[in-house]
Amino acid sequence: MTPEEGWRLIEESRARIDALDRKLVELLNERTRMVERIGRAKAELDLPVKESNREDDVFRNVLGHNAGPIPPDALRRVFERIIEEMRELQGMRRQSSGTP
Amino acid sequence: MTPEEGWRLIEESRARIDALDRKLVELLNERTRMVERIGRAKAELDLPVKESNREDDVFRNVLGHNAGPIPPDALRRVFERIIEEMRELQGMRRQSSGTP
Repeated sequence: MTPEEGWRLIEESRARIDALDRKLVELLNERTRMVERIGRAKAELDLPVKESNREDDVFRNVLGHNAGPIPPDALRRVFERIIEEMRELQGMRRQSSGTP
Repeated sequence: MTPEEGWRLIEESRARIDALDRKLVELLNERTRMVERIGRAKAELDLPVKESNREDDVFRNVLGHNAGPIPPDALRRVFERIIEEMRELQGMRRQSSGTP
């Protein structure tokens, strides 16, 4: 690989990453809207905000559809962060822990 | 909203989240492949594995294309996790910190 070829490959890969990241942002916002919708329905029905079974389902879905190269542990940590941020947004943690 | 309507809405939203999550997994794996490709090109060209300017570009791209409802801070933390996991994968941290 010549330096020119190497740099072209790097620049192309970065442009692809930037496009992927914009799509990730879009999907994360769509996911947030769904979480908010569920939160509103639960509030109206007076249902508990957090169900640990549902969280297991999310991880089962994600890890069961991982073709790699991301290792399962890394993927799990990324989704833990996503779930955590969305729970924060809804103030779910505060409500579910029972603290004022 | 009747309980039946509420539950239907929750189930539909969850199915949508599961589909979004599978798409997120796909994009994260594609992103990982691009990061690996860059890593290989850099190794061949003997370039430093980490460039902090590039990381700034990634956050600028992501935050500049965020239409919400995710707040910028939450989105930044999600991408910090993604970048961190991908750097780990490449053993970039070990190399860039200079420890054996």
